[in-house]
Amino acid sequence: MSKILDHINYPKDLRLLKQEQLPALAKELREFIINIVATKEGHLGASLGVVELTIALHYVFNTPDDVLVWDVGHQAYVHKLLTGRKNTFHTNRQLGGISGFPKREESIYDAFGVGHSSTSISAALGMALVSQLKGEKNKQHIAVIGDASIASGMAFEGLNHAGVTSANLLVILNDNAIGIDPSVGALKQYLTNVKKGTQKQDNIFEALNFNYSGPIDGHDLPAIILELERLKKVKGPKFLHVITTKGKGLKQAEEDQVRYHAPGKFNAKTGELHVKANTIEAPKFQDVFGHTMVELARKNKKIIGITPAMPTGSSLKYMMQEFPERALDVGIAEQHAVTLAAGMATQGYIPFCNIYSTFLQRAYDQIIHDVALQKLPVIFCLDRAGLVGEDGATHHGVFDLAYLRCIPNLITYAPRNEIDLRNIMYTAQLGLKLPIAIRYPRGRGKIIDWKQPFTKIEIGKGLCLQKGKDIAILSIGTMASIATEAIQLVSKDIEVAHYNMQFIKPLDTALLHNICKTHQTIITLEDGVIHGGFGSAIVEFLAENNYKNKISILGIPDTFIHQGSTLELQKELQLDAISIANKIKALY
Amino acid sequence: MSKILDHINYPKDLRLLKQEQLPALAKELREFIINIVATKEGHLGASLGVVELTIALHYVFNTPDDVLVWDVGHQAYVHKLLTGRKNTFHTNRQLGGISGFPKREESIYDAFGVGHSSTSISAALGMALVSQLKGEKNKQHIAVIGDASIASGMAFEGLNHAGVTSANLLVILNDNAIGIDPSVGALKQYLTNVKKGTQKQDNIFEALNFNYSGPIDGHDLPAIILELERLKKVKGPKFLHVITTKGKGLKQAEEDQVRYHAPGKFNAKTGELHVKANTIEAPKFQDVFGHTMVELARKNKKIIGITPAMPTGSSLKYMMQEFPERALDVGIAEQHAVTLAAGMATQGYIPFCNIYSTFLQRAYDQIIHDVALQKLPVIFCLDRAGLVGEDGATHHGVFDLAYLRCIPNLITYAPRNEIDLRNIMYTAQLGLKLPIAIRYPRGRGKIIDWKQPFTKIEIGKGLCLQKGKDIAILSIGTMASIATEAIQLVSKDIEVAHYNMQFIKPLDTALLHNICKTHQTIITLEDGVIHGGFGSAIVEFLAENNYKNKISILGIPDTFIHQGSTLELQKELQLDAISIANKIKALY
Repeated sequence: MSKILDHINYPKDLRLLKQEQLPALAKELREFIINIVATKEGHLGASLGVVELTIALHYVFNTPDDVLVWDVGHQAYVHKLLTGRKNTFHTNRQLGGISGFPKREESIYDAFGVGHSSTSISAALGMALVSQLKGEKNKQHIAVIGDASIASGMAFEGLNHAGVTSANLLVILNDNAIGIDPSVGALKQYLTNVKKGTQKQDNIFEALNFNYSGPIDGHDLPAIILELERLKKVKGPKFLHVITTKGKGLKQAEEDQVRYHAPGKFNAKTGELHVKANTIEAPKFQDVFGHTMVELARKNKKIIGITPAMPTGSSLKYMMQEFPERALDVGIAEQHAVTLAAGMATQGYIPFCNIYSTFLQRAYDQIIHDVALQKLPVIFCLDRAGLVGEDGATHHGVFDLAYLRCIPNLITYAPRNEIDLRNIMYTAQLGLKLPIAIRYPRGRGKIIDWKQPFTKIEIGKGLCLQKGKDIAILSIGTMASIATEAIQLVSKDIEVAHYNMQFIKPLDTALLHNICKTHQTIITLEDGVIHGGFGSAIVEFLAENNYKNKISILGIPDTFIHQGSTLELQKELQLDAISIANKIKALY
Repeated sequence: MSKILDHINYPKDLRLLKQEQLPALAKELREFIINIVATKEGHLGASLGVVELTIALHYVFNTPDDVLVWDVGHQAYVHKLLTGRKNTFHTNRQLGGISGFPKREESIYDAFGVGHSSTSISAALGMALVSQLKGEKNKQHIAVIGDASIASGMAFEGLNHAGVTSANLLVILNDNAIGIDPSVGALKQYLTNVKKGTQKQDNIFEALNFNYSGPIDGHDLPAIILELERLKKVKGPKFLHVITTKGKGLKQAEEDQVRYHAPGKFNAKTGELHVKANTIEAPKFQDVFGHTMVELARKNKKIIGITPAMPTGSSLKYMMQEFPERALDVGIAEQHAVTLAAGMATQGYIPFCNIYSTFLQRAYDQIIHDVALQKLPVIFCLDRAGLVGEDGATHHGVFDLAYLRCIPNLITYAPRNEIDLRNIMYTAQLGLKLPIAIRYPRGRGKIIDWKQPFTKIEIGKGLCLQKGKDIAILSIGTMASIATEAIQLVSKDIEVAHYNMQFIKPLDTALLHNICKTHQTIITLEDGVIHGGFGSAIVEFLAENNYKNKISILGIPDTFIHQGSTLELQKELQLDAISIANKIKALY
């Protein structure tokens, strides 16, 4: 079927084609991607939207000598297929397979590793400035960035700097009016006006000293190639505005762009999604958050929900439907989201600020400086905490316990299950006088009947889940269920106690004194980094109180964790029930 | 002398004045500030520049019901004098005195606490959105932000969101073309063109849906008052561009705006700076960095220096003078600075990225995601680490060891003195294959003859500074000298060993094994937070290796530390030599 693609492994092969052959290649690439993603899963819409643009870039530019930086990287599948990874593409996002994002270790064509948004302009500018110092006059540096990502502050910082340099930098705005969810913000409105011709092209990017061209149709190969050829000869910072359609070439993906961003398995021929058999499943944690927000917001008019560009992923969309004025998507703007919430809290309202654990790293200063220092009772809900699976190293939410624990005034809680997540949300909106971070994992819980009446959770209290005199396991969050499994694998001769500490801050010191006095050996268990994390808090407690218990900290070691299913990764890291059971036996 | 000011304690008093009296009040306010700052020290130029603007704001708006958010806060002295703090202003920045920045605890007129830049738009927008939900139609929300701060990404995120709301928000751009150092970037050039009339006023801010007005003369009281009265009636997001002169009213401060940002003591009558007697002093750490950069850059053409808006404060200015192409001020853009450096490192160049410890919190994700994950050998120089004194809670660099220690691949080092800072910079540029963070304090070292020939430092090695069998002190960074003093205060009967560990990562585990085996009792000493910091690393090591030593962690407790001289704060925190000596005796 893929007659042309069969002969293309690297851009040098692509460059041998006649321009007339490229539309056929585009068609083959779309089919190739659809066929594999339909069964292997992955990100679909973004790559379908940039097939022509990617072909044109590798056709016109001399990659990898010319550097190409993809922002975020969801859209880089075509790039991967054209740069040596056609035959390994079926391993995409799997343990040991190729990454779902550009990754320097993987290919010389991946000039910069990505995953989080809005880094491409800064990185490409850094490369371009070095080229200038080296006297490399013809080397091209290209950043391809979407309209959602360019609205993030970091991208603006890059543009603002680039505009006062003479660096050979080409910023390509891939404008499809959508990130994962539809784009928002004043810049998006402005871009829409530019597209409609109601805004003069004497525009923002020209004001920032970029040589602006566009908008052009990103699916018109001859037009793109012509324009890229022209831009190759233009000196200094250049900006090309390209209009594309996310999901291009697959009807359903064009029509339901949010659903087909990463659609799971689907029928490659018809495009229809695989509908799961109607089994009753425990809910996703994100939906527990999303539906609970609606319930609480109905009763408490002061509740506001905030998401930086993740209405679907966080499930804040449910509240956005029912209370649009009180549920806000602020775009990819984590810094702004946090300080906006702080401002709201000063006026007595109750902001729930939902940010994925890995993306909260973007707003670290704002948590410290704007929220915790002022003791403003913002409620942070950190989704995708712990191992996230196939998204891999850029996305694991494993640093949060460590980077939050050192912040004074910040209550930090990890629910053990869906019911606890509901109840801590209920408790927080009753008023804590301090900020709280609630971190919970990606994926589903285990409790089908989770919608129980609300109960208040006592701040700073741990739970005894099981008594036992020989060894005490101290778990945090949903690691409790793995600990429970592990205990069941151990002979009854070993009496294992199990405590779920619930709060990283404040620690339940009364409970800890009790545990330390009655158990010789302690195991701590967390789905975060060992350095500075939950177990670290426990050994600090032991040191402070001069306890001499034997203690073993189980968690993520001091290395970046690659991709794989969460279960596979837990096994690798010896954080699965069997490994923990073995640990218990070894320590007994 | 202050005939009008004598009668003014709060804005309600101000509003009783006739408009004709205001210029005289402005003159009195300038004199008041100059007289006190001349002897008590503090930030001068920024406040002198906004005397008229501040008067006008409190005259026209109904503060504190109308909320006024000052960005950064260096410029808020006039605001403080007009809002109940005239009689305590002489305690500015001192232990127990009023803060050098707006602070919510201090006054109901300080609507939002600040210190770091670019937070005002987000905070004021949050307040304005809540007012809208509450149905408060006449409440005004004003953010005053400088031209250096508005170029930071976070401010753009705030503007981008505000522009799609109908919030009653007034953003006032206080454009004096300077932050602490002169402003940079494309937006700054653009604003200059607007001022010159060479840029149409159909501008960036209008493109972002703001109702733009200006530029107006920020020292023309009638003009400002007229415009603010007009804007009070305009609905939705508004933007007022005000041109001011930093240091206005003091000749020297207008002429040397960088020097007079925070000039230290000076003659209030003549404006002349107090020149210190020509004693030979040990250098500031920042100057050791600055001069060493020049020395290294002369020999190694691949070295690049980067500062986000702190050429003077970091002393990168010396390299900027000699190698302007290789020493870059990127503006208040910490996120961009870090990823720019990452991009440069991919091309084999050697970026030294100098960021104050407290501001590196702004680029936390970039360190993890763009640098450490990709093992790019960026050299981070973290100035103002540890307690910084009078700037207080917003500026202490006490979290860095904790938030950096959990990042894999990141070498982390704290020099004990000026010579070690030089040598680690020399060592790092030889090539480490991993990123490194070098953190050093504000202020002067102790070694006058610091410019010694370069010596390579072995990565991951601690130092034995003194042997002793009873108790081992493990210090990090410049806390070594306090530990040395403390040991001298202890009777010779107690044999105290002293190790300076130098590296937080990698830890010198061989040395640690040795120490644990030969000393019953260990004290760790750091100028960072105890939770997750250096001492925490040591107790983790003990736990991992099942050592049962008695261990005491000395550092910053889990609370935000207020302002005061560093010595005063060390005493309060029992991190001074006498307190540590007492601790040694108590543990013996």
